[in-house]
Amino acid sequence: MAESGPSEKFPETQTVALVRELGGEVEFNTDYPVPKPGRNEVLAKILYTGVCQSDLHTKSGTAAGPDGNPITKIKLPHVGGHEGVGRIIQLGPGCSDDVKIGGLVGIRFASRICRRCEHCLAGKEQYCKKSTNHLHHEDGSFQEYIALDADYLTILPDDIDPVVIGPVLCAGLTAYKAILNCQLKLGDWLVVVGAGGGLGHLAVQYGRAQGALVLGIDKGLGKRDYIMSLGASDFIDFTASSDLIGDVMRITDGGAHAVVVTSGNAKAFAQAADMLRINGTLSCVGIPPGKAFIETPVSSIVIKGLRITGNLVGSLKECLEAVELVRRGVVKPKIEVRPFRDLPVVYEELEKGRITGRVVLKIAKD
Amino acid sequence: MAESGPSEKFPETQTVALVRELGGEVEFNTDYPVPKPGRNEVLAKILYTGVCQSDLHTKSGTAAGPDGNPITKIKLPHVGGHEGVGRIIQLGPGCSDDVKIGGLVGIRFASRICRRCEHCLAGKEQYCKKSTNHLHHEDGSFQEYIALDADYLTILPDDIDPVVIGPVLCAGLTAYKAILNCQLKLGDWLVVVGAGGGLGHLAVQYGRAQGALVLGIDKGLGKRDYIMSLGASDFIDFTASSDLIGDVMRITDGGAHAVVVTSGNAKAFAQAADMLRINGTLSCVGIPPGKAFIETPVSSIVIKGLRITGNLVGSLKECLEAVELVRRGVVKPKIEVRPFRDLPVVYEELEKGRITGRVVLKIAKD
Amino acid sequence: MAESGPSEKFPETQTVALVRELGGEVEFNTDYPVPKPGRNEVLAKILYTGVCQSDLHTKSGTAAGPDGNPITKIKLPHVGGHEGVGRIIQLGPGCSDDVKIGGLVGIRFASRICRRCEHCLAGKEQYCKKSTNHLHHEDGSFQEYIALDADYLTILPDDIDPVVIGPVLCAGLTAYKAILNCQLKLGDWLVVVGAGGGLGHLAVQYGRAQGALVLGIDKGLGKRDYIMSLGASDFIDFTASSDLIGDVMRITDGGAHAVVVTSGNAKAFAQAADMLRINGTLSCVGIPPGKAFIETPVSSIVIKGLRITGNLVGSLKECLEAVELVRRGVVKPKIEVRPFRDLPVVYEELEKGRITGRVVLKIAKD
Amino acid sequence: MAESGPSEKFPETQTVALVRELGGEVEFNTDYPVPKPGRNEVLAKILYTGVCQSDLHTKSGTAAGPDGNPITKIKLPHVGGHEGVGRIIQLGPGCSDDVKIGGLVGIRFASRICRRCEHCLAGKEQYCKKSTNHLHHEDGSFQEYIALDADYLTILPDDIDPVVIGPVLCAGLTAYKAILNCQLKLGDWLVVVGAGGGLGHLAVQYGRAQGALVLGIDKGLGKRDYIMSLGASDFIDFTASSDLIGDVMRITDGGAHAVVVTSGNAKAFAQAADMLRINGTLSCVGIPPGKAFIETPVSSIVIKGLRITGNLVGSLKECLEAVELVRRGVVKPKIEVRPFRDLPVVYEELEKGRITGRVVLKIAKD
Repeated sequence: MAESGPSEKFPETQTVALVRELGGEVEFNTDYPVPKPGRNEVLAKILYTGVCQSDLHTKSGTAAGPDGNPITKIKLPHVGGHEGVGRIIQLGPGCSDDVKIGGLVGIRFASRICRRCEHCLAGKEQYCKKSTNHLHHEDGSFQEYIALDADYLTILPDDIDPVVIGPVLCAGLTAYKAILNCQLKLGDWLVVVGAGGGLGHLAVQYGRAQGALVLGIDKGLGKRDYIMSLGASDFIDFTASSDLIGDVMRITDGGAHAVVVTSGNAKAFAQAADMLRINGTLSCVGIPPGKAFIETPVSSIVIKGLRITGNLVGSLKECLEAVELVRRGVVKPKIEVRPFRDLPVVYEELEKGRITGRVVLKIAKD
Repeated sequence: MAESGPSEKFPETQTVALVRELGGEVEFNTDYPVPKPGRNEVLAKILYTGVCQSDLHTKSGTAAGPDGNPITKIKLPHVGGHEGVGRIIQLGPGCSDDVKIGGLVGIRFASRICRRCEHCLAGKEQYCKKSTNHLHHEDGSFQEYIALDADYLTILPDDIDPVVIGPVLCAGLTAYKAILNCQLKLGDWLVVVGAGGGLGHLAVQYGRAQGALVLGIDKGLGKRDYIMSLGASDFIDFTASSDLIGDVMRITDGGAHAVVVTSGNAKAFAQAADMLRINGTLSCVGIPPGKAFIETPVSSIVIKGLRITGNLVGSLKECLEAVELVRRGVVKPKIEVRPFRDLPVVYEELEKGRITGRVVLKIAKD
Repeated sequence: MAESGPSEKFPETQTVALVRELGGEVEFNTDYPVPKPGRNEVLAKILYTGVCQSDLHTKSGTAAGPDGNPITKIKLPHVGGHEGVGRIIQLGPGCSDDVKIGGLVGIRFASRICRRCEHCLAGKEQYCKKSTNHLHHEDGSFQEYIALDADYLTILPDDIDPVVIGPVLCAGLTAYKAILNCQLKLGDWLVVVGAGGGLGHLAVQYGRAQGALVLGIDKGLGKRDYIMSLGASDFIDFTASSDLIGDVMRITDGGAHAVVVTSGNAKAFAQAADMLRINGTLSCVGIPPGKAFIETPVSSIVIKGLRITGNLVGSLKECLEAVELVRRGVVKPKIEVRPFRDLPVVYEELEKGRITGRVVLKIAKD
Repeated sequence: MAESGPSEKFPETQTVALVRELGGEVEFNTDYPVPKPGRNEVLAKILYTGVCQSDLHTKSGTAAGPDGNPITKIKLPHVGGHEGVGRIIQLGPGCSDDVKIGGLVGIRFASRICRRCEHCLAGKEQYCKKSTNHLHHEDGSFQEYIALDADYLTILPDDIDPVVIGPVLCAGLTAYKAILNCQLKLGDWLVVVGAGGGLGHLAVQYGRAQGALVLGIDKGLGKRDYIMSLGASDFIDFTASSDLIGDVMRITDGGAHAVVVTSGNAKAFAQAADMLRINGTLSCVGIPPGKAFIETPVSSIVIKGLRITGNLVGSLKECLEAVELVRRGVVKPKIEVRPFRDLPVVYEELEKGRITGRVVLKIAKD
């Protein structure tokens, strides 16, 4: 590929998928300014981007914050997208030598971190007290060009397929981290609730790859076939089961060692802990809207010695590990590529739960 | 002490604190048979016993099971007590050499285990699938004599003070295990909710002993003084605070690394997770009656990366560790010794939350 | 199968492979008494048994104890064998209901445990302070009949293939535990030294099954093909490499996350830690004769932050987990079945390193 | 304190303790240039500095690298010192707002890191593949002024005593991390070999603070009294013991749960693992010169299930934790303050093992 140095001319304006107010419609604005990379920043041309449930919730104004109330402090107009893959086309001043024009980079949820707080120093910078992200504070990957902090750059291997990597940066990382949190031993039973979804089909694969027996829960014959093809040991169609908890208990011989709930549905969380065996782990990754809580009696948590954990995406290091497993072919994201302009339709389908795997939008024109 | 061999005569009847039906009154029956030790059993004379909140809940028929419903399968007539210390006075046939007449033994919650299930083999036999206990299945320590399984015997060191050890066998073990579950690092902030209670004052000390900064929560100046004297770093009187969560955040500089809820009060659990800092741990040990939930939104668990754990008492190994720390003077149970016949009064005071530390009943007459 | 009750007649004598003194020859004695099951014991008819390197070392008087000196306190005459599979044919008095005539049982290294020491209580009973075993204290599986402690019985699932399970009970368990000790993450590099041997080929598979990238080290094209067929990612023939450490570094991109040394060769241990990446783990399972050391400079352990661990077989619980993975077809022991009388020849071949996988002797005549 | 901005004048030259070649003498050069802070750098005036064994080994050319050979790639002329405390007096361009003139900073072993490698991302940046340090690559704290990377700055709390903090930045951190690596449980036995030394007296206190029973090993009555005064449970004078291992076994009732070897003496490492109980941990922190290795037979590591770990200093996060425990008075470094010009004498005393605790040099003139 031809190196394009800082002297090259880039367009002044670009097309972005804009939302002027929370709850408003997506509008394709072709006149949005292309950012200029500042000191220690790179300019990247976005090739592809996944579409995440949180993009939809944020645009709609229904994304729940840590207190269960809707997050309202969101930069407006809003440009979503945090599963992007781009190519570096320009370097701002001061970038270090390991950042190169032509290199592939990820556009992830986290955009900037402080590097000094206890979480940054611990390698858990996703919890940085001063962090900004590409959902609430900065324009994301639903645009053609983006400026990224070169000091917190998601540098991707050269030999990956950029089409499939987008969803790994958020859905894949989240699924991977949820599986790590499960602390599974080889041969343990893992239940994935929402196994056919964007996060779910990746959790099935990350779990399978480390030797768990996976029981997928979702609805429909199509999803059953797909999930079994990923190496799951069993499947329950929750719309067809008259005793979901009983079925899980029977299949797993007394309860799962871990349950990952990838659904954003409050009901899915309410009963998930009932599927656990003694000392089992419930790993929450979906965020149901509002103040939904886990309706497991404290007596159950105490008497069965349960463990409930949550995780917010993951760190950059964990992201690169999740990517590496895709690069090596261990995990295969199921994606459907659509044109950028399909975003509003994709949101509709997401809302209706009609998407298996993940939709990836093609952003760059060629 | 004089060794009393199998030929010695023991009384045929004894005094026990009997409850004829759940919800009924405690009745002192002086005509209850003294058990005969079977094969691999020992007969012990009970010296002292603690009185636990679960004795009260069980007697009243309000103890919650793992599904949040009251436990109803309880041996009747019911004899409670599972914090007893006794002395071996007779050996049944087949006891191994390390069991000796005159030795001190504990009467704990767990009475018999299967030794074959996954939990027994893992050294987590408190979760044994076929276990029986001294609360629901066998008569406990509210009697003068008891037969115990010699193969699952809580052999106590000779040089302990039997008066203080009873409460360690349940309250102490539970508190100790809850602290282990917190996975505290030296210098971490630990909040103990119900810090002045039977479990709480022990959790404060076990936490302190491993280098945590302890913030006690309870009510009243008396409890404040007592808890601070145990080495707590700070105290909040929850009846005097207009912003409990805010106060915890301020004192712990952003939230506790771990919160142990020892209260059986549903409200205490509802908000406990809000006191946690990022990646903090809520360790539940009290069992509120009924289906009380942890009313923390899933969004909070996910975004803050929280961990919620429960634990049921602990294993025999952990019990002996908890005892050893008391033997060495690191942890000092606060007890008040009362006559056996005071049990009904103690239950009343427990119900009203009027007891600091733990009441110990003197059972043996001399 | 026909149930044979306590009234049935069994032979009074049997054939055993006897060694009269350490360093002596194996002698087939056809006149050895069949043991009678005592209280809480079962009598089992041995079907198959694996042959372990430690049988050879013990018989030869060269097995190293924890101080590196030869173990000399060994019951004489000596009957080896601790990878046996048998069928229960008689119950002594007092056996519990879950022990049944006709059931399959394992004859493992550990024979009896105390159930009271800190290791027994922790579910690490392989370290029991008063334990006895089938190598140094009791006759092992190189005989037709054996009496086993019913309270510490290795009850095997009914639907396993008894021919392949013997080697799982020692070699498989040891390999499985060594892999657990490695604390591998999905995608980590695992080096198995002696990858084609009895322990090695199982370590390759247990490691692979939990998502490690396995690099096998052994000698010869035959072993290369076999190890690659087990799912290893790469192989080094150490007899053909002029720079073994360099080759490992190159293939693993900077060093292995873990190295398992299954060889009993002192030289294999000397350099194994040099193959590790920063913070890597060396997991030792073979026991070289004599006082062989790990010749890694302390400066290397400190500066690279290495971890070195050893493990002695594993617990009964871990054994059953290792067996379960074989039952499910995840791990396939490579065995060659030979007649009982071949034992002396097998020892010779073991000594010359000529055995790939494990030899299993057929003990029962039909 | 008066803020001194970039316009203020600082001296052009300063006094440094220079070593012109490895093995050469310390020379006080008063004409050494004062560095200018570059972009993202601060200039600090050094107040105090500890003197570490590694300064001595490096100057002498005897410091062992990871291969056990002497480290020879060392910047010459060499200025040692990596336990410094200074005050920021000037900011280079681009420093972020949280760096302030007048603030206290630490000068530690690590000076610059890459922030991109797997170790940096994991919060284990002490292992950074491209890191530089104040011992081999950059001038350290044996000078009056130093330029520090503002992006990897050890920002110290305002309310610490700068005199005692220097030794915490290397010796204290190393001791703290060694204790973390021991994974001690409350009540476990910890042996500290070299308990009275610079690292040792801190390891005793960090271990004690998290509830371990500490057995100190060193020589002489003075050290005994001092170590017992730190809260150790027992002490062995190794020069007076005829059976050191036996004494440790007796005092710890079967062996220590962990042993920390802080000595740089090869002999101390050779036998340290023999002091361990089953499943115990040997935590190495001192670096003996040359290729000294741990002379524990592999058979002992395997049969006793031992764990041997090493650690190189620690991360910035762990450093701040170690500092915080000193700030709170939990751990008290024993220091003796000497004038800067005493460095050569201090080296002599270090070589002869005559220093209890740590020497701190006063660098700034007032």
